[in-house]
Amino acid sequence: MPEPRDASSFLAALASALQPSQVTTDDAIRLRHGHGHTVSEINAVRSNGFPRVPDYVVYPEDEQQVIAIVRAAADNGVVLMPYGGGTNVTEALRCLPYEERPIISVDMTRMDRIEWIDPVNRMAKIQAGAAGRLIQSALAQHGFTMGHEPDSVEFSTLGGWIATNASGMKKNRYGNIEDIVLDVTVVSALGKLERAQVVPRESIGLDPKLWVIGSEGSLGIITSAVVKLFPLPEERRYGSLLFHNFERGLAFMFELAQKDSYPASVRLVDNLQFQFGQVLKPESKGAKKMKSKVEKWLVTGPLGFDPSQMVAITFVFEGTKEDVERQEKMVYDLAKKHKGFKGGEANGKRGYTLTFGIAYIRDFVLQHNILGESFETSVPWTQAQDLADRVKAAIYKAHKDRNLPGNPFVSCRVTQIYETGCCIYFYMAFYAKGVPDAVGAYHEIETAARKEVLAAGGSISHHHGVGKLRLPFVSDIMSPAMRAWRDQMKCALDPQSVFAPQLPLEEHAEAAV
Amino acid sequence: MPEPRDASSFLAALASALQPSQVTTDDAIRLRHGHGHTVSEINAVRSNGFPRVPDYVVYPEDEQQVIAIVRAAADNGVVLMPYGGGTNVTEALRCLPYEERPIISVDMTRMDRIEWIDPVNRMAKIQAGAAGRLIQSALAQHGFTMGHEPDSVEFSTLGGWIATNASGMKKNRYGNIEDIVLDVTVVSALGKLERAQVVPRESIGLDPKLWVIGSEGSLGIITSAVVKLFPLPEERRYGSLLFHNFERGLAFMFELAQKDSYPASVRLVDNLQFQFGQVLKPESKGAKKMKSKVEKWLVTGPLGFDPSQMVAITFVFEGTKEDVERQEKMVYDLAKKHKGFKGGEANGKRGYTLTFGIAYIRDFVLQHNILGESFETSVPWTQAQDLADRVKAAIYKAHKDRNLPGNPFVSCRVTQIYETGCCIYFYMAFYAKGVPDAVGAYHEIETAARKEVLAAGGSISHHHGVGKLRLPFVSDIMSPAMRAWRDQMKCALDPQSVFAPQLPLEEHAEAAV
Repeated sequence: MPEPRDASSFLAALASALQPSQVTTDDAIRLRHGHGHTVSEINAVRSNGFPRVPDYVVYPEDEQQVIAIVRAAADNGVVLMPYGGGTNVTEALRCLPYEERPIISVDMTRMDRIEWIDPVNRMAKIQAGAAGRLIQSALAQHGFTMGHEPDSVEFSTLGGWIATNASGMKKNRYGNIEDIVLDVTVVSALGKLERAQVVPRESIGLDPKLWVIGSEGSLGIITSAVVKLFPLPEERRYGSLLFHNFERGLAFMFELAQKDSYPASVRLVDNLQFQFGQVLKPESKGAKKMKSKVEKWLVTGPLGFDPSQMVAITFVFEGTKEDVERQEKMVYDLAKKHKGFKGGEANGKRGYTLTFGIAYIRDFVLQHNILGESFETSVPWTQAQDLADRVKAAIYKAHKDRNLPGNPFVSCRVTQIYETGCCIYFYMAFYAKGVPDAVGAYHEIETAARKEVLAAGGSISHHHGVGKLRLPFVSDIMSPAMRAWRDQMKCALDPQSVFAPQLPLEEHAEAAV
Repeated sequence: MPEPRDASSFLAALASALQPSQVTTDDAIRLRHGHGHTVSEINAVRSNGFPRVPDYVVYPEDEQQVIAIVRAAADNGVVLMPYGGGTNVTEALRCLPYEERPIISVDMTRMDRIEWIDPVNRMAKIQAGAAGRLIQSALAQHGFTMGHEPDSVEFSTLGGWIATNASGMKKNRYGNIEDIVLDVTVVSALGKLERAQVVPRESIGLDPKLWVIGSEGSLGIITSAVVKLFPLPEERRYGSLLFHNFERGLAFMFELAQKDSYPASVRLVDNLQFQFGQVLKPESKGAKKMKSKVEKWLVTGPLGFDPSQMVAITFVFEGTKEDVERQEKMVYDLAKKHKGFKGGEANGKRGYTLTFGIAYIRDFVLQHNILGESFETSVPWTQAQDLADRVKAAIYKAHKDRNLPGNPFVSCRVTQIYETGCCIYFYMAFYAKGVPDAVGAYHEIETAARKEVLAAGGSISHHHGVGKLRLPFVSDIMSPAMRAWRDQMKCALDPQSVFAPQLPLEEHAEAAV
């Protein structure tokens, strides 16, 4: 662990604002605040550590303290990096070795209060450091949800969701984060952005609120937000369907996307992921075991499903009882056309909840010399099958070109549907025992995959964001003027670059001169 | 009409890019490009004209020409004002007398092509100068709509909708403009903003596309956009309900907003507007006349509706036949609880289409010495009734304080509903014969109304925007740092202030030094 750099003038400026318990240089804490959940970061934690980590971690407990921290940072030449759940997979928190100034991680998790709930106008003001599980349970006590359920919901925070332009698994019913957030309060280098009123929708010319969405910590620290509330659904049911192969499953997803409304969550897993899910399934006993065996025989025998081709779609239905029944009917009627077979509610529920855990399997397999991770994209419908095929092939090729042992594990699922296309989520892993610089090889394979994603018409990211990991790809999708807008805007709103740079590194280094 | 200022160096720079037919100094055309549809502007057109109008009007026919115009403007110190349908009601097009540089109106209406339609991924790329009626008819030939129907849809353009963050009457089904637009191409002072791909949704860090929404021409010229398409609905029906008074109608609207989905359009008109609609109703004949008389007797007799209190809600239902029937059932079931009485389909249709015409009634009444106009706001549900009452009272008071003749006409309707609140649209008019500086009095009354809107918790605007008319109110709703973000961003992205200033005038004059 590198020694913390001297930030005594910064800390002195905060002496009256923060208690000693709100500042730390503890090595383990500094380490934890200097990384997210990419494979290279987790590997670094388990091996050589990082060349640079935050020098201090501070824990503001209210907005005034955040204001004091930002002012002290600007006055004393330190860098601030807002920290929420630490669950990013974009190297957003990685500290740049070339940064000469002290780096301060601003841990927002002590600002986790629901400030108010307005049950009639269905809004709540929530502090940015509140984690998803806390928000869910606090709102549920009042009969509400904000409906935002990313895979990381246990740890990720409201501020992080806004900063990364997040998407929840039930966006069909509740919307993505930009649909849910009505207002944000931000402490920036130019002062505190806040509004006197919150209204359902408005037209007010240039709207700084929009610039904060997806800003990835580069423009300021989000301290709170007003979000929409939804009553807890009267009814929730799960469901699943089996299809003969990925093409058929995708054709079903496309046709479903032509409907006026979809179930809260609809997700298609490919064959490999389907098999993987079967392996992780708890073993059945007694009558259940018999039923399960009969079903298995029925599916692979008379119904002609090929275990090496079949795929599954899982559903979460939410709404009034009538709505849920109507959605079920719509889905199962449509399934007939595509020769889908009902896989039952238990499988649907397991498929849905499995996602919450699957992110953590990576840490587990790492102990067994397997490097694995996920990445996602969004793509118009007509390019979805082609993109999935090409990205898988590119990973196989990159793996083979490097003479790595065995075969890579490459799998995908379609996790979100829109009128115009879908989000595809890939998992890849490979056996790394004895591979020299396995993390470097992993990074090269992932880069090859990302290039193929873009070449096949996919986006850089559907909801993970850019961070530092994907910055090199921004020039592939944005014209020079569009990048100049980003750079000029960052320089104008954060002239001293107090906040974690979002710019391409070389440009940022230039701008900082 | 002021003489056009000398812009010979600008025009010389464009000599090879534009044909002579693409540039004009025609007085009538310059006049038309120097105003929108506010009462003071229309009055100026009918009386003394404007101290300043655009010096030239140019008509680009493709994107290259827009690029040439912007480059020539930056090189030769002229101001550009993009022009679409000219239907704004915010004085967005008013030319500032203090502007020393030549002002060039860039009329986009020759760039009105549908560039491509992708019927499978349900997207179309459309040039920014295309007017709503053209977009509607062109897409309908392919079985699609983009679903955006503002009152001004006949004349207003795609570029204008994006620049003003517009809302359509059927937003419940199709979304507001920010939900419909997937990508924009913009020619800015820093160059052309464009993307290599269009995807359904993404997370790419700072996203300049979002900054253009609501930019009101201040950051560049929108040349085209990719928008979502929706299949034309299988079924469309109209409907209407009568309620005993505004409170009851509003209570119905609130309860409807708690449902998971609403009919495409739902609008509540207050009693005065209801009566006004009755006056404009074409006279019935024969059997229809008899039926109409019987209905009238039934409503005001046995059903106990008071003609001086009753209000109406009109509906547009769209979707599959089953969806439409379900929506109708939901609405009419809910109506029973609030003692609503079915007013029939014809009344619903007339109520909906009346809106398209009502904007033009203002020009008609102006000939009869009546000054009248509309303005809108959005507000949380719990404040809606109070806001409506207070704004009406404020207008009556301001009218009385000025000893103006007769009574003002003040009326409102609720035009959009959200989970969290609604949009309220006001009409006000007064008899101005013999009133010295009637337009000045009108402006004062409107300012009093706007202040009351804000004091009652309403927004500056739900969808009209800010323009120059409402700039003085921005400091009432945004903190100083939030306004500094707007100013700094404008200066950073348009350092020479080529585009129509959006800043508070004094700050802009300062920034321009």
